[in-house]
Amino acid sequence: MSIIDDLKTELASISNLAHAVEVLCWDRDTYMPEGGARQRASAISELAAFTHARATSDAFGTLVAGAQREADSLAEDSVDFLIVRMSAYDYERLKKLPNAFVAESSEAHSLAQSAWVDAKGKSDFAAFAPHLEKNLQISRRTVEYYGYVDQPYDALLGQFEPKMLTKDVQKLFDQVRPVVVDLVRKISQRPPVDRSPLFRNFDEGAQERFAVEAITRFGYDFRRGRIDRTVHPFEVSFGRDDCRITTKYNVNDLPSALLGTIHECGHAMYEQNIGEDIRNTGIDNGCSNSVHESQSRLWENLVGRSESFWRRMYPSLQAQFPGVLDDVSLDWFVRAINTVQPSLIRIESDEVTYNLHIILRFELEQDLLMDRINVKDAPEAWNAKMQEYLGITPPSDAEGVLQDVHWAMGGMGYFPTYSLGNFLSVQLYDTALEQEPAIGRDIAQGEYGSLFNWLERNLWRYGRRYFPQETIVRATGRPLETGPYIAYLQRKFGALYGL
Amino acid sequence: MSIIDDLKTELASISNLAHAVEVLCWDRDTYMPEGGARQRASAISELAAFTHARATSDAFGTLVAGAQREADSLAEDSVDFLIVRMSAYDYERLKKLPNAFVAESSEAHSLAQSAWVDAKGKSDFAAFAPHLEKNLQISRRTVEYYGYVDQPYDALLGQFEPKMLTKDVQKLFDQVRPVVVDLVRKISQRPPVDRSPLFRNFDEGAQERFAVEAITRFGYDFRRGRIDRTVHPFEVSFGRDDCRITTKYNVNDLPSALLGTIHECGHAMYEQNIGEDIRNTGIDNGCSNSVHESQSRLWENLVGRSESFWRRMYPSLQAQFPGVLDDVSLDWFVRAINTVQPSLIRIESDEVTYNLHIILRFELEQDLLMDRINVKDAPEAWNAKMQEYLGITPPSDAEGVLQDVHWAMGGMGYFPTYSLGNFLSVQLYDTALEQEPAIGRDIAQGEYGSLFNWLERNLWRYGRRYFPQETIVRATGRPLETGPYIAYLQRKFGALYGL
Repeated sequence: MSIIDDLKTELASISNLAHAVEVLCWDRDTYMPEGGARQRASAISELAAFTHARATSDAFGTLVAGAQREADSLAEDSVDFLIVRMSAYDYERLKKLPNAFVAESSEAHSLAQSAWVDAKGKSDFAAFAPHLEKNLQISRRTVEYYGYVDQPYDALLGQFEPKMLTKDVQKLFDQVRPVVVDLVRKISQRPPVDRSPLFRNFDEGAQERFAVEAITRFGYDFRRGRIDRTVHPFEVSFGRDDCRITTKYNVNDLPSALLGTIHECGHAMYEQNIGEDIRNTGIDNGCSNSVHESQSRLWENLVGRSESFWRRMYPSLQAQFPGVLDDVSLDWFVRAINTVQPSLIRIESDEVTYNLHIILRFELEQDLLMDRINVKDAPEAWNAKMQEYLGITPPSDAEGVLQDVHWAMGGMGYFPTYSLGNFLSVQLYDTALEQEPAIGRDIAQGEYGSLFNWLERNLWRYGRRYFPQETIVRATGRPLETGPYIAYLQRKFGALYGL
Repeated sequence: MSIIDDLKTELASISNLAHAVEVLCWDRDTYMPEGGARQRASAISELAAFTHARATSDAFGTLVAGAQREADSLAEDSVDFLIVRMSAYDYERLKKLPNAFVAESSEAHSLAQSAWVDAKGKSDFAAFAPHLEKNLQISRRTVEYYGYVDQPYDALLGQFEPKMLTKDVQKLFDQVRPVVVDLVRKISQRPPVDRSPLFRNFDEGAQERFAVEAITRFGYDFRRGRIDRTVHPFEVSFGRDDCRITTKYNVNDLPSALLGTIHECGHAMYEQNIGEDIRNTGIDNGCSNSVHESQSRLWENLVGRSESFWRRMYPSLQAQFPGVLDDVSLDWFVRAINTVQPSLIRIESDEVTYNLHIILRFELEQDLLMDRINVKDAPEAWNAKMQEYLGITPPSDAEGVLQDVHWAMGGMGYFPTYSLGNFLSVQLYDTALEQEPAIGRDIAQGEYGSLFNWLERNLWRYGRRYFPQETIVRATGRPLETGPYIAYLQRKFGALYGL
């Protein structure tokens, strides 16, 4: 088995380089003094380019081909077989992008991101438009390099969700959209919930202490992780034994940091519990964007916004902020943290309307890519869809078409995976409860170990051994579907709003 | 000039890799969760080995040779000429060590360092002895690989102090030792100073605020730096625009963190002010260990322990710790912070006895290297020298031969540079005051700008353009000498102790 061993040595080496790049990025986003930006950008792009070159070199290709021949004699479920299979898939894909194109894209996205920060600050779409145009050209060339079977957008989507097709997403979204629109309409006819208790004065240290208490209870391992503060929260993994969370506290907004920390904790627990047996093999990370997002959303929404979680934890929350929530009942608090209300900003939206923000972007991205609408008309198209789906029109482009970084950073094709993650979170959670009824009882007691163990056993440990569709079927017995998610929304919000 | 440009591109690339390694190390020593250690060690050694391989490759050698031919037509003081000259020196030296030997040494030193931590904790020299033996063998092979003109120890010393010879160090030490021994003897006959006010209760936050005030006043640029906490304080530079300090606070020890921070600030200001014109060229770092140490010691001792510094800053120090120092006069405080007292631990020793700790190590290292004493007899030899030079005998090996990490980490040859840095700090400071008398007046007013500017203009900006001896002559007009240092010790401590 010598060629497979050689391949694994090279994969470990590439993995170490990727680890270094991630540390450089984490430091940039947490502690780096402002003056260090130029030098750091240069170090990151140097190392990233070098990593890409190594992972697409002819030498690596030869290694992969040799390993594939050896793997023919292995069981199709053996770890080595799966490592070789995924390495071959990665290599074939990465190799389709010429090195010069990768460098050009990376530079264009950096420039676009800086321009986007300025343009958003001034709500000046015209200043960002040339960068969006350039990024769209890069996306179209990406489509050409990757190729596609059914629709051009498939190539972009496939960067974040391997083997997922646009038409599959369309089908799932078509099932969810009418349900969500109907739910939003019905909720809008009910008396509004007073959310103001969530925006009182919450000491930042106490916010952190409560968040740490909650995620420790869930199973986040601080010996192999930590929390730092940053402007745009994220989770990052430097291998399974160092998976970090970042958070941003706002003294007048309790849910933002709390649910944000729980969200990132979901990502981090996934990475912390990827099998030791695939350490440093290149498949020791999350399976895909949507599978990753299913974990952050499961812990954020199905646990962190649930009545059963708060029934156990609310007294502890009240104790962290003496006097602040004395007049707020558990029932009121749970309603407040689950309020459905059409709003302008995706990342601040509730569980129900969130999907409409995603559907809007999914449609607009395809229109832009296919030149069905021009870049200059994007703000108008955005606003029209906001009015159609959410009944509100952004007062400025900063709160509309310019709100997200994704189109600046080259993330076209990324948005749909957020909603797919929502759908999958419920499909997984329902399966867990069905297979192990004890999980429901444990959670009611404030114990999350059995849920943690089910996820570890059925999902986390496998990392990227299988493609997303395979992973989902293995964990839940069925392909990704929207039924459980739709039933969950109707059940939860039906009860909360007495529909 | 195309080959020199190619060389500079490659140097920038190697510099970026070194930057990445430094960030990985900084994070390991400040924020990394304990679980991340194994993976991080692997990433660091992978990247370090790769950097070494690239800097010693035949391709790099060809580049250097071509650049040298081009440089023949350049002025000997032009930046490009100096970059090529130093690259050739580095390449020739680094290439003498085979890659396999570098890997073997690195692993041996890692193992020795872990063993040393345990052995020191238990004061068990026998447990460390086999590692010291192995490290000595590695040192002897290092000597063979590098070669030497005069004495084997030259090869070890040269790793930290290019072109410095053992006999040069010996000559300087022979000048200083009798003066220091005499000074210590005379001081021991004077009434002891009560140092207890330095060990009262000093709030850590206030310690940090005061240290930040002091080093901001000196000229440390926080836009291109920061302070973090660590177990073993150090300074690290990721290029001139990101030079970080680390510190360790002890609530019952004021001088430790304060003088430590000023010490690291001296290193950091040097790195922050290396010329923009040599950014990322491989010569954009400190000139040598001793020159670097001259900067940390200049700010720590000549400024930070001076009466003129405290005359301006003592009221601010008292204000940071309300009530704590009310009964302590400026005069008492200055005497306390400059107390001379033979002690066991080098890093806690005063300005005068410090050099005796170094001389002891310098002699013992040569004895060990040349097999004049056996590893097993090292504790006894250590204790005998402690008794001879300082009049005290360590009660345990943890406080004796096991106290420093250097022999574990492969730093044999390093110690002498600490004392050379002491000597040079005064030679530079005297030259600055002589050339610009305004500096003395400014410092008396609490203004450090003119000292900062003199150092920037005469030393810092040049980085590693010149070899240490050249650098010293350019800055002070003379080679390294001990006269100014001896005069400084006699003047300062003669006055403090009324000798």
